[in-house]
Amino acid sequence: MYHQTKRKVHSLLHPEIVGDNHWDKAINIFIIILIILNVIGIMLETVDSIYLPHKKFFHDFDVFSVIIFTIEYILRVWSSNHDLRYQHKIHGRLRYMASPAALIDLFAILPFYIFLFLPAGIMTIGSDFRLLRILRLLRFFRLFRLTAYTKSTKLVLNVFKSRAHDLLLAFILTTFLVIITSCLVYFAEHDAQPEKFSSIPGTIYWAVTTLTTVGYGDIYPVTILGKIFTIAILFVGVALLALPAGIITSGFIDELRKTRKQKVCPHCGKPLTDHAEH
Amino acid sequence: MYHQTKRKVHSLLHPEIVGDNHWDKAINIFIIILIILNVIGIMLETVDSIYLPHKKFFHDFDVFSVIIFTIEYILRVWSSNHDLRYQHKIHGRLRYMASPAALIDLFAILPFYIFLFLPAGIMTIGSDFRLLRILRLLRFFRLFRLTAYTKSTKLVLNVFKSRAHDLLLAFILTTFLVIITSCLVYFAEHDAQPEKFSSIPGTIYWAVTTLTTVGYGDIYPVTILGKIFTIAILFVGVALLALPAGIITSGFIDELRKTRKQKVCPHCGKPLTDHAEH
Amino acid sequence: MYHQTKRKVHSLLHPEIVGDNHWDKAINIFIIILIILNVIGIMLETVDSIYLPHKKFFHDFDVFSVIIFTIEYILRVWSSNHDLRYQHKIHGRLRYMASPAALIDLFAILPFYIFLFLPAGIMTIGSDFRLLRILRLLRFFRLFRLTAYTKSTKLVLNVFKSRAHDLLLAFILTTFLVIITSCLVYFAEHDAQPEKFSSIPGTIYWAVTTLTTVGYGDIYPVTILGKIFTIAILFVGVALLALPAGIITSGFIDELRKTRKQKVCPHCGKPLTDHAEH
Amino acid sequence: MYHQTKRKVHSLLHPEIVGDNHWDKAINIFIIILIILNVIGIMLETVDSIYLPHKKFFHDFDVFSVIIFTIEYILRVWSSNHDLRYQHKIHGRLRYMASPAALIDLFAILPFYIFLFLPAGIMTIGSDFRLLRILRLLRFFRLFRLTAYTKSTKLVLNVFKSRAHDLLLAFILTTFLVIITSCLVYFAEHDAQPEKFSSIPGTIYWAVTTLTTVGYGDIYPVTILGKIFTIAILFVGVALLALPAGIITSGFIDELRKTRKQKVCPHCGKPLTDHAEH
Repeated sequence: MYHQTKRKVHSLLHPEIVGDNHWDKAINIFIIILIILNVIGIMLETVDSIYLPHKKFFHDFDVFSVIIFTIEYILRVWSSNHDLRYQHKIHGRLRYMASPAALIDLFAILPFYIFLFLPAGIMTIGSDFRLLRILRLLRFFRLFRLTAYTKSTKLVLNVFKSRAHDLLLAFILTTFLVIITSCLVYFAEHDAQPEKFSSIPGTIYWAVTTLTTVGYGDIYPVTILGKIFTIAILFVGVALLALPAGIITSGFIDELRKTRKQKVCPHCGKPLTDHAEH
Repeated sequence: MYHQTKRKVHSLLHPEIVGDNHWDKAINIFIIILIILNVIGIMLETVDSIYLPHKKFFHDFDVFSVIIFTIEYILRVWSSNHDLRYQHKIHGRLRYMASPAALIDLFAILPFYIFLFLPAGIMTIGSDFRLLRILRLLRFFRLFRLTAYTKSTKLVLNVFKSRAHDLLLAFILTTFLVIITSCLVYFAEHDAQPEKFSSIPGTIYWAVTTLTTVGYGDIYPVTILGKIFTIAILFVGVALLALPAGIITSGFIDELRKTRKQKVCPHCGKPLTDHAEH
Repeated sequence: MYHQTKRKVHSLLHPEIVGDNHWDKAINIFIIILIILNVIGIMLETVDSIYLPHKKFFHDFDVFSVIIFTIEYILRVWSSNHDLRYQHKIHGRLRYMASPAALIDLFAILPFYIFLFLPAGIMTIGSDFRLLRILRLLRFFRLFRLTAYTKSTKLVLNVFKSRAHDLLLAFILTTFLVIITSCLVYFAEHDAQPEKFSSIPGTIYWAVTTLTTVGYGDIYPVTILGKIFTIAILFVGVALLALPAGIITSGFIDELRKTRKQKVCPHCGKPLTDHAEH
Repeated sequence: MYHQTKRKVHSLLHPEIVGDNHWDKAINIFIIILIILNVIGIMLETVDSIYLPHKKFFHDFDVFSVIIFTIEYILRVWSSNHDLRYQHKIHGRLRYMASPAALIDLFAILPFYIFLFLPAGIMTIGSDFRLLRILRLLRFFRLFRLTAYTKSTKLVLNVFKSRAHDLLLAFILTTFLVIITSCLVYFAEHDAQPEKFSSIPGTIYWAVTTLTTVGYGDIYPVTILGKIFTIAILFVGVALLALPAGIITSGFIDELRKTRKQKVCPHCGKPLTDHAEH
């Protein structure tokens, strides 16, 4: 009976192992919606015109969410040793609590309790607690678990994994170009605009926003040399930005081929393993 | 005789079932040009220097268009039960009227009649009617029907359909990145620029215009932390923006292969079905 | 003797039919360099700090160029009936003169003679002659002839030709999105920024610079509704901009496959035509 | 003994020929970290708030680095004739010193000695020596040697090499478009904004930042004609910018196919050479 309940609780709380009955689905969807509402809530709290008139509502919703998430967390830890990886009664559960997923869950509710038990005097000190509250956003990361089991995620992950070295090289080349660009344009522009191109590290911000073609327009070259460098760098940059696109696209096409091949031979329609014999 | 006329009218009004004789083509081209002129007209009405001196002309053209489109709409409804899907005399026609295509047609001419039968006093209230007038732009959507039957549209639709899950994942990942970006940069920039980075939802606008590399320059980071976040996010963003390109390109290549395969075997030139037997 | 000279002149003036001897090459390279110098000259004439002190040099260089180009043009027309397409003595040459390539050559030197024979009084009227002078830039188009015969140009042209329908559809879809965007954002922003979003056609400029992610920052949305529309449109725009990349890339891969196939069978190394028989 | 030492030194200083023992690795990693720290140091020297209070530290670190790099350079030159290409005692070493890699090494440490032996009076003249100091950044290029031997670099280099002609054509086409764009927009905008669109070469900067979709917003069209040109050019530009992406992607896919083919036949799993015989 005890173990059956635990098994039940365990499957209830793991949305990725979708149960067949409506009860499982309902709980999972409820948790997902609560997570999404929490994220929206945290974002809306920063809009004064919405937050100030509904301060109490936001607070109540936060209390309600934390209670639900705390219950969920306790049940998760309790039922964790149903999982074969965390089988031991105490060690298993502690190891589960140390897993990244469980830590995210814990940190997502922790700020609430810190605020609750800290003396009010300290709380008013203020702005540093803001960062603590942002920890609540960690709730959002739990949604990743949902997407983590779809076919598309596996495909995208496979593409990034199989192309990791090529993408790293593209990243290194871009870093090289960014640093070289920053140095050249710094020396071209520093005297003309000492405030905007104040230092090489400061120019890196300009170089990155230019090479990625964002181009805010808060910093731009005014000297002829600076403009010529910018033009030259943008031409190189276009080819360099085409690299990740090319790498990722060829990765997708490669994954596609693998999937197709595992199913049937493209020439006679038989499975590939049979085909090799004819 | 009656049925023949209806069949004739039905085929006349469906540009996608292109009739062979010149009469069909002429009517269809006339309707298409009228739609395009209507869209141009609606756009030009907002240019005061063009609209004000030719107010009467614009009005007359609108009346003329609505008369044509009303006649067309009535004939469409009348002849709709020629179509097997809407065969019943009354129910069929009503079901046709409830179809998206017919509703677009109706809403595109409705604003004119609302203005016509409303007392002039209400009309002068003004600005809210503007939105009603914009409904006339729905006429433009009717042009979609034209493109909807070409080979290219089928290809593009197939690509988007077969890659829907992957594109959805790319969309979700981008949304995740946008929200995380907005929170981080909001906390980095809010104190320095409380008006520009006023709230997290407000920062989302900045995050989207930055990640898509638009970068208007109305909002940009000024703190060192904000700039470092921006640089980090742009590097991730470049890889993330390469995802849809990779997904769609691999989709195109896949569709291409399918089309090619259905015609001939790439190895011996025979049709694929014959090929499997040799 | 006369015909041999004409043949010689004809081959001399057609850089694409590259002669083997050094004489041919030298003349062609001289003409090419003169064209490039002319284009650079026309551009530099607009830089006051360079043009004003060297007015005479620019003029002399222009006279020298026009003399060379006029001689070249006359020799081209004279030798044109060596070409089988323009065989007839008078009609052939006239038809050659009406060909786009010859018209470009003519229009490129014509402005000089118009200035020469027009009374000086008219010339000082001024600014309208500027456009006439710009005709000299047509000389630049002659360089296209050089690239027109390389393998890469054929590849790129084949890609664009074979994908013309798909690219046209992508263009139409983008046009649709631009118009819809312009209307929505016009109605959202017109009241808040009547000068920047003054009319729908005026908003089209904003929509195009936004969707292509240029984002100058001269016009940007300030209302919440306008910002939400911008965000939504940018997400759609990213997928839409990936379309031409996908279409062109799949075109390149397709062309690649064709080239490869024409040479050898990828499976046994024999030419494809032989292969079909085994 | 002497030769063995030289061989040892030679292998120690060539990170690409990674030795197996820990000693080799430790020295190489030390040199790499020193190079990276040097680059970071040079960049931080331009940040006044960091440089001014730690002037002595930066100077000491520079002296320390130059001593290490000088020792390394001398050892490299001394051991260079271990390499078969530079076998001769004197000529070989001189030829090694003239190789690009050795010149980069030399120029990277030279500025230090120039400052050291120049009279202090000349040094204070100032700003021109800045460019000399930037030569120290050449140390950074030495990192290229590290990436130059990875599989990814070979892949990327192969892609760029095999597509060099196509990329060159894309570059030429873009240059054509940039020049044509600059001329058209110059004539449309010069009268309205004589300072921003001051000359055609000046407009080229605008054209490049627009076509690459950077769009700083320091220069933008204000006339209707200028805006129409911009819209037209951006549409062409989107297709043109998709070219390098398409070229590079098709290059990656081609390289992929070659690699795959050299291993096994995709149809029967045997190596390709065997396959041809069955």
